[in-house]
Amino acid sequence: MRIALDAMGGDFAPEAIVKGAVQAAQELDAGASIVLIGKEDVVNDLLKEYGYTGSNITVVNASQVIEMGEHPTKALTQKPDSSIAIGYGLLKMQKVDAFCSAGNTGAMLVGAMFSVKAVEGILRPSIAGLVPKLNGGMGVILDVGANADCKPEVLEQFGELGAIYAKYVLDIQNPKVGLMNLGEEEGKGTMLTQAAHQRLKANTNINFIGNIEGRDLFNDKADVIVCDGYTGNIILKMAESLYDILNDKGMHDPFFDKFNYEAEGGSPILGINGNAVIGHGVSSPRAICNMVLQAQKMASSKISERFRKNFSE
Amino acid sequence: MRIALDAMGGDFAPEAIVKGAVQAAQELDAGASIVLIGKEDVVNDLLKEYGYTGSNITVVNASQVIEMGEHPTKALTQKPDSSIAIGYGLLKMQKVDAFCSAGNTGAMLVGAMFSVKAVEGILRPSIAGLVPKLNGGMGVILDVGANADCKPEVLEQFGELGAIYAKYVLDIQNPKVGLMNLGEEEGKGTMLTQAAHQRLKANTNINFIGNIEGRDLFNDKADVIVCDGYTGNIILKMAESLYDILNDKGMHDPFFDKFNYEAEGGSPILGINGNAVIGHGVSSPRAICNMVLQAQKMASSKISERFRKNFSE
Repeated sequence: MRIALDAMGGDFAPEAIVKGAVQAAQELDAGASIVLIGKEDVVNDLLKEYGYTGSNITVVNASQVIEMGEHPTKALTQKPDSSIAIGYGLLKMQKVDAFCSAGNTGAMLVGAMFSVKAVEGILRPSIAGLVPKLNGGMGVILDVGANADCKPEVLEQFGELGAIYAKYVLDIQNPKVGLMNLGEEEGKGTMLTQAAHQRLKANTNINFIGNIEGRDLFNDKADVIVCDGYTGNIILKMAESLYDILNDKGMHDPFFDKFNYEAEGGSPILGINGNAVIGHGVSSPRAICNMVLQAQKMASSKISERFRKNFSE
Repeated sequence: MRIALDAMGGDFAPEAIVKGAVQAAQELDAGASIVLIGKEDVVNDLLKEYGYTGSNITVVNASQVIEMGEHPTKALTQKPDSSIAIGYGLLKMQKVDAFCSAGNTGAMLVGAMFSVKAVEGILRPSIAGLVPKLNGGMGVILDVGANADCKPEVLEQFGELGAIYAKYVLDIQNPKVGLMNLGEEEGKGTMLTQAAHQRLKANTNINFIGNIEGRDLFNDKADVIVCDGYTGNIILKMAESLYDILNDKGMHDPFFDKFNYEAEGGSPILGINGNAVIGHGVSSPRAICNMVLQAQKMASSKISERFRKNFSE
C-alpha cells in the first residue's frame, strides 16, 4: 500500500511534512510506504537532515506549489505540475492508494472532483470532521465546509457516507446517525432539517436515531452527526477554539486534549473514487503522521469501494 | 418600576421561582418591585416559608398553569388565566415594565406576539442568547431558536436589534456586529449569509465588522453575533453543554463558569413592544434572581422604546 503525501502543503511545509513522514514511516504497517510529492531536492535534503535511512519513503518531483490563498480552480488549471495536481494524478491512475495534504483545502476538494471524481450516484462529496466523544471514542460530523447550502437528499447521503466511514474506519458497529437540529422532536427545525429528517428516517441503510441538539455533540447519542457544511464548519471551529482556550489557561484533560486537531489526523473527503484526507493548515509533524496513518486505515478498509458499492449498485 | 415574574414556570417552580424573587427583592434598585404571578395561596405560603417580610413583592393570582410540554398557541387560547397570559396582559396594559418566565419558551414567544406584538417595522422578533467573552465581558447572539429559517433582511434586523441590546443593556459603546459564517472572506457562506452580509454592510445604523467564524464566538471580534435561529440554538446549547462537561470533570475557571446559564439571567425577546425575558427551564433561585435584575436593566434602559424609535420612525 502506498500513501501519497503533499510535501509542500501547509503553513509549516515542507519541514513539518517531511518530519511527519519520517515519523509515520516508522509506524506504518509492514508493506506500506509513503510517496512524498514536492520539490525533489528540497525534500531529499530534509529527509537526510532528519536522519531518514529507511526504504519506505519515495519522493516524486513536483515543480510547482499551490499556495494557501490561491483560487482552487485557477491554481489547479495553471499549475499542472503542483504537488496537489500530481498527487491526484497518481491517485486516479491507482499508483497510490490514498493522498493527503495539509495544503489549500479548496484545491484538495476541486482536485478530487476534477481527477478521481465523485462516486456515481453521490450528489455532493463531503468533507467530514472528527469529533471526540466523552466515552473515549470518536464520532464523525459531516459536512464541515464543502457544501454550505444543502438539499435534503444531500443530507440523507451524508448520513450514509458518515455511517460507512464510522463503521469501517472508526470501527463502530451499527453506528448511530443523528441529525443536528434545534430540538429533539421530529417536527422541529428548518425546512431543510424537517425534510431531511423524513428521508433519513425512511433510509433502511442506516441506523437513524433522530434529531440531536448542540448539547449532544460530545455525548454518545450519535456516532455520525449530519448537518449542512455551514453549520458543521461553525461547530468544528468552535470545538477547535475550545482546545486553544483551555490550553492557554493551562487546563488539561484527556477528553479535551483530543480536541487538538493534531491528535486524530485530518478531514477525509467522503464520496469520491479514492481516499483523500485534508490536514489542518497549521499541521505539526505529529498531525501529519496521524493523517498518514488515518489514510492508511481508509485505504485498508477499502472505504472508497464501499461508497461505490453502496451508491452505484 | 414593576417586574412581573411567572411563579409557575420552570422545572423547579414554584419553589425556585419564589426563592429567587425573595433574593432579587433585596438586590433591586430602590423603588423597583416584583409582581409574582401564580396560584396566590401557594405563592403566599412560600413567601412566608422563605421568611419574606418586605414590601416590594406583590402577588397576582393566576388559577391556571401552562406546562412545559404544551402546544403554545393552544395552551394560551385555552388557559386565559394562566400565569403567562396574565403576565403579558399586565405588560400590554403597562401595569408592569417587564415580564419574565422560566416556563414554556414557545408560549412566552407566542404570548408576546399575541399581546404586546412585534414593534412596527420588525419582520421577526428574536430570542437572543448571552455569550461570555474571554475579555471578561458579555456578547449577544441572535437568533437562538425563535426563527429557524431566516431571510437576509431578517438577519439584517437581528444585527440592529442586537446592537441596541448590546449598547443599552450590556453597556458596550459602538458594539461590533459580526455575521456568523464559515469563512472571513466576504464571498463565503450560504446564499443566506452572502446576501445578509451585503445588507449588514450597507446598514449605517450598525458597526458591522464582517464575517466571523466558529472560533470567534468567545473572542472580542464581535459583541453582537448574527445568525439564523437554527445555528444560534446549536451554538448556545453546545456552549451550555461545555459548562456541564467541565463541571463534571471538576474543572473550574472564571471564564467557563460564566457559561453557567445561572450566571447571567435569561434570553431576552427582542423586537416586541415590551420587555420580556425567557429563563432556562432548570432555573435555580440564583438564575431567577439574575433574570429579574436583567429585566430591570432592560426596562430602565428603555430598550423596547429604542426598538420602536429605531424601526418605526
